Amino acid sequence: MCMLVGAVVSLPAAEVPEAVATVAEAVGEIDDKRAAYEELVAGQGEHAYAFNFFVVSMLWTVIAAAMVFIMHLGFATLEAGLTQSKNTVNILFKNLGIICLGLLTYALWGFNSHYPDGDWLISGFFALGSPIGDLNADGGDTFGYGGVELCMTGFGDFIFQAMFAATAATIVSGAVAERAKLLPFMIFTVLLVGIAYPWVGSWHWGEGWMASLNGGNGFKDFAGSAVVHAFGGFAALACVLLLGPRTGKYVGRRIRAFPGHNMPLATIGVLLLWFGWFGFNGGSVLSAAPGPLGLVFTTTALAAAAGGVSAAVLSWSILKKPDLSMALNGVLAGLVGITANADIVSPMGSILIGLIAGGIVFFSVLMLDRLHIDDPVGAISVHGVCGVWGIVAAALFDVTDSGYTVIGQLIGVAAVAVAAFAFSYIVFGILKAWMGVRVSEDEEAEGLDIGEHGLEAYPNFQPLAER
Amino acid sequence: MCMLVGAVVSLPAAEVPEAVATVAEAVGEIDDKRAAYEELVAGQGEHAYAFNFFVVSMLWTVIAAAMVFIMHLGFATLEAGLTQSKNTVNILFKNLGIICLGLLTYALWGFNSHYPDGDWLISGFFALGSPIGDLNADGGDTFGYGGVELCMTGFGDFIFQAMFAATAATIVSGAVAERAKLLPFMIFTVLLVGIAYPWVGSWHWGEGWMASLNGGNGFKDFAGSAVVHAFGGFAALACVLLLGPRTGKYVGRRIRAFPGHNMPLATIGVLLLWFGWFGFNGGSVLSAAPGPLGLVFTTTALAAAAGGVSAAVLSWSILKKPDLSMALNGVLAGLVGITANADIVSPMGSILIGLIAGGIVFFSVLMLDRLHIDDPVGAISVHGVCGVWGIVAAALFDVTDSGYTVIGQLIGVAAVAVAAFAFSYIVFGILKAWMGVRVSEDEEAEGLDIGEHGLEAYPNFQPLAER
Amino acid sequence: MCMLVGAVVSLPAAEVPEAVATVAEAVGEIDDKRAAYEELVAGQGEHAYAFNFFVVSMLWTVIAAAMVFIMHLGFATLEAGLTQSKNTVNILFKNLGIICLGLLTYALWGFNSHYPDGDWLISGFFALGSPIGDLNADGGDTFGYGGVELCMTGFGDFIFQAMFAATAATIVSGAVAERAKLLPFMIFTVLLVGIAYPWVGSWHWGEGWMASLNGGNGFKDFAGSAVVHAFGGFAALACVLLLGPRTGKYVGRRIRAFPGHNMPLATIGVLLLWFGWFGFNGGSVLSAAPGPLGLVFTTTALAAAAGGVSAAVLSWSILKKPDLSMALNGVLAGLVGITANADIVSPMGSILIGLIAGGIVFFSVLMLDRLHIDDPVGAISVHGVCGVWGIVAAALFDVTDSGYTVIGQLIGVAAVAVAAFAFSYIVFGILKAWMGVRVSEDEEAEGLDIGEHGLEAYPNFQPLAER
Repeated sequence: MCMLVGAVVSLPAAEVPEAVATVAEAVGEIDDKRAAYEELVAGQGEHAYAFNFFVVSMLWTVIAAAMVFIMHLGFATLEAGLTQSKNTVNILFKNLGIICLGLLTYALWGFNSHYPDGDWLISGFFALGSPIGDLNADGGDTFGYGGVELCMTGFGDFIFQAMFAATAATIVSGAVAERAKLLPFMIFTVLLVGIAYPWVGSWHWGEGWMASLNGGNGFKDFAGSAVVHAFGGFAALACVLLLGPRTGKYVGRRIRAFPGHNMPLATIGVLLLWFGWFGFNGGSVLSAAPGPLGLVFTTTALAAAAGGVSAAVLSWSILKKPDLSMALNGVLAGLVGITANADIVSPMGSILIGLIAGGIVFFSVLMLDRLHIDDPVGAISVHGVCGVWGIVAAALFDVTDSGYTVIGQLIGVAAVAVAAFAFSYIVFGILKAWMGVRVSEDEEAEGLDIGEHGLEAYPNFQPLAER
Repeated sequence: MCMLVGAVVSLPAAEVPEAVATVAEAVGEIDDKRAAYEELVAGQGEHAYAFNFFVVSMLWTVIAAAMVFIMHLGFATLEAGLTQSKNTVNILFKNLGIICLGLLTYALWGFNSHYPDGDWLISGFFALGSPIGDLNADGGDTFGYGGVELCMTGFGDFIFQAMFAATAATIVSGAVAERAKLLPFMIFTVLLVGIAYPWVGSWHWGEGWMASLNGGNGFKDFAGSAVVHAFGGFAALACVLLLGPRTGKYVGRRIRAFPGHNMPLATIGVLLLWFGWFGFNGGSVLSAAPGPLGLVFTTTALAAAAGGVSAAVLSWSILKKPDLSMALNGVLAGLVGITANADIVSPMGSILIGLIAGGIVFFSVLMLDRLHIDDPVGAISVHGVCGVWGIVAAALFDVTDSGYTVIGQLIGVAAVAVAAFAFSYIVFGILKAWMGVRVSEDEEAEGLDIGEHGLEAYPNFQPLAER
Repeated sequence: MCMLVGAVVSLPAAEVPEAVATVAEAVGEIDDKRAAYEELVAGQGEHAYAFNFFVVSMLWTVIAAAMVFIMHLGFATLEAGLTQSKNTVNILFKNLGIICLGLLTYALWGFNSHYPDGDWLISGFFALGSPIGDLNADGGDTFGYGGVELCMTGFGDFIFQAMFAATAATIVSGAVAERAKLLPFMIFTVLLVGIAYPWVGSWHWGEGWMASLNGGNGFKDFAGSAVVHAFGGFAALACVLLLGPRTGKYVGRRIRAFPGHNMPLATIGVLLLWFGWFGFNGGSVLSAAPGPLGLVFTTTALAAAAGGVSAAVLSWSILKKPDLSMALNGVLAGLVGITANADIVSPMGSILIGLIAGGIVFFSVLMLDRLHIDDPVGAISVHGVCGVWGIVAAALFDVTDSGYTVIGQLIGVAAVAVAAFAFSYIVFGILKAWMGVRVSEDEEAEGLDIGEHGLEAYPNFQPLAER
């Protein structure tokens, strides 16, 4: 034993104190390290990683909100450009009014009704709204608000969604242009944007009943082909049916063209909408996650391009002239078509979705005219019909095998369309009975700018006599 | 040996088990540490945290600068739209010239005079300017440049502020439209933007004497209701008083309307200004801090919306027709009103600020016409009067209890207004005496486009005869 | 003591060597750990750090792509504004078609031909294209895709470059305006954007033969003064020579002016182009690196401003009237001039580059008219001539001493210009022989809007009779 001890001691004995000192030093270092680590964790470590991702994502959210805002300028210029100069002030006023009223009603009621956070009046189907408060309070300005799934602050969430909210009414505004009376339309707008839009939207984005669609995989509507665009398109259809066509549009079997008065304005509109759509779809990633972001920008751009090309080629082949307004609507059709599925399709899939959307809008515009449904800017075809297409395409072109079915998707979009149509038909119908929704024939002939606003859009220029 | 052993054992023997235990603990700790390190791989170091926050914030700074740049397109189209077609080229030329000259003078003199960094000629009151150099040098491209308070590089700081600089002259340009001579106006622009704007701005943003206002809490002017907008508005008032009204505007008690020649252009202008304002106010957070950013976007949007609604409703009730140009100015009024205080008010506060601003601009526009102060685009009311309102509202609606008082705020904005007015009255007055500041009556009647530029804005269209 | 020793030895004695070994191991582990920690800070931490830097940079990439997209609206409105109202629909249709076809061809062929990643058909000179696949696969959505040098995902890379691709054809579209037949021009567009642009671009950005220029320092063309702008400008020159001038433009020694029909539209175009250029140049930093980003925004803005001022001053001095369209082209000249070198020049250097560019465009526009080369919008001067200037300026104004020589730069841009000219002359020449590239004189007189599209841009307004 002593030998053993001796043996042990003979070599390492001298080093034992050193070893012990080293251990002590090591422990000290570890203590320092622990302190540093704790400082890191508490201050900026582990959390900092998430914090910076959160900061980037939140920045993207507000930039995307600003881009969606620009879509309202796009709608205003597109609708003004595609209609007659005597109704331009009216269209601009309506579109400006819609974005203003949309933001205010969404703050005062819509947001909390759209995202009830489990606090339903009728479970999964309807929630009450209320004014927003300090959304930065109670962790609303931290990663804790929505985590990776909704990587923004409460105010970021609000302002991004608020910019979407007014879109539905804007879609309707184009379809009822050149004949709808201002006051009832603005009342309708407040109710559509303030009440109906968040109500229907809550079914999907508010985690309502649509989560059970597609065998529990949920309804697939990435950025709103259904809950924004089809919603607006079918609301527009109801209003157009109640309003009737513009005077002189359909005389017997003859369909008279009312060409848009300012094609540069219409083109500005479509290209601003396309630009804004990068925020609409890109922002719907709900974070700055690099993979989805690049994919969504790419599929959005390619679908728009393909939609423009197919509508232009069809008009060139069938109508014999390449029609600019058809090409413009083709671009929008591609954009609406990709909106439901931009994050789950391949680039080649997005091109096909756009090509088909461009074809759909071409035939739908012609078809509605045949049916004497007068939609001056093609809003029902672009947003309603292609909105349905986008939802179906999500099942057909999904490369992620997420279990979306055509039937499940159709159920979802049908529910949205029926609700939008019914709500609009009832509310606009009541307004029609109560105060009338259409201007007089004299006012229609003279133009709504003088009749409703006492202001001309282009007072320095000589308008052409009635054609 | 035994001694040795004894010696070894005598002291450390008792500690050997402890040492062994310590070693075991150390090994355990090291395992924990390894786990912690691996966790840290998913997290990050102290330095990286700040670096990435800096990278995001700097990115936001340059994007916000680009958005503020777009406001110059907004001003150009708004001012062109609200005036007559015979003066359109002149307005476009002036606005293009202002942004070009503004950027150059700010680089050559303004920036260093605006932010003297303690290097005053007259302490807290006036500093000399000089050309910018390599702002990336000496840590100008690191977090060290401005820290969390000004989270950008030196060039980021420069370009963001440079985009603001030209705004003041642009505000004046709208007010003097349709009668001011080009050359003296451009000379005035260079002096206003190059000298006066950074001089007055240095009082507040350059850490000048205004820091002592409000009992040492400092003047509250978040993004420039006073030092940008009221500055421009009161400079405009001085120039308008020196110029006099447009010929035929006020005949006896009759006030003749000169309706804007292109309402889509004016609407494009206001919506681009609104878009750009998200960069103007949002960028003034001076970092990408998520909490303030979401709040500022929200309050900016709600105030604009409320301003548009209140001005529209007032025009509808009082003038009997919903006036588009009034609604447009209402939106701008709300934006100017929220600019001083967007980061310290609640959403409901911002709505109230906007509603009041819309009312103020409505009555101010009517009042100035009564006083025969001819401001073709309403710039004095929108920027001057509502700029004052925004400063006062910062004291009234502050939810952060920062100690801003109405009286302190009024002192600050009064100093800005007086300085802007006096500088402009003197400089534009000298130019008036020296070379005249107004075109001839013949040129005014024919239009400045032909007179000053020999170019028409719309040569292919038939203008209406004099009305 | 011996008991103690015994006690110690009796049980732990056997373990003492083990304990000592353990201590040694612990010390070793601690050393390893320290190294690991240092690695973490330097290496592993960098990875986490890199992730967020990657996220920010990728976000900037897609935002910059959206800003470059807006340049297409800028080109559309600029070209429409600077030409006659009877050809407006045609210009809008062409520009919309170019962006749509450009995106599609770049996805189906161009991208993989532009960036062959070493997979050349003729080494350093020509690579085959192919459709893009899932660019997120195989690490395409991670930092690993391009590292710090190209800090974006594969889809980010694609969409940013795709937005550039169509620019070349858009430049041509302005130069051939008011007389080129639609169908051959669209065929030419597909071939120019789909084949020639990525082919020539691969020499520089695809790491082709141009890397050996300037004594191995490589060709300096930061964001594409040569491979985008000069490419487009010299392609335009070839097409213009094949087309001939507009009827009536040059009669004997008289040069007839065809003033642009809508100067607000042209101004909107230039200011949107300037806005988009912040994405074009800023995005070409290829990350969100704060130092270069601030510098590039600053030099881009100052060169544009200086170009506008010098062209305006020259027109005022020499032509006696300050010409708006010259000032607009001066801004663009400054932007094209700074595009090759925005990241390596000083602010004062950028001002000089812009001033000279503004002068160059002024004299070039006058010179081309003297040579009876009819370019309705000045595209050859702005993009071709100033593109060459930007490349030369990169050698003259470089403050980084990177070894760029005037001669090396000239070789590079000459190769680009010759290739663009030759390709265009051959392809457009074949189309001319095959189907004709010019509309009939009757159609030219009546306008291409009616002739090619059966649609007027402004059907509600009275056009002026032929002047």
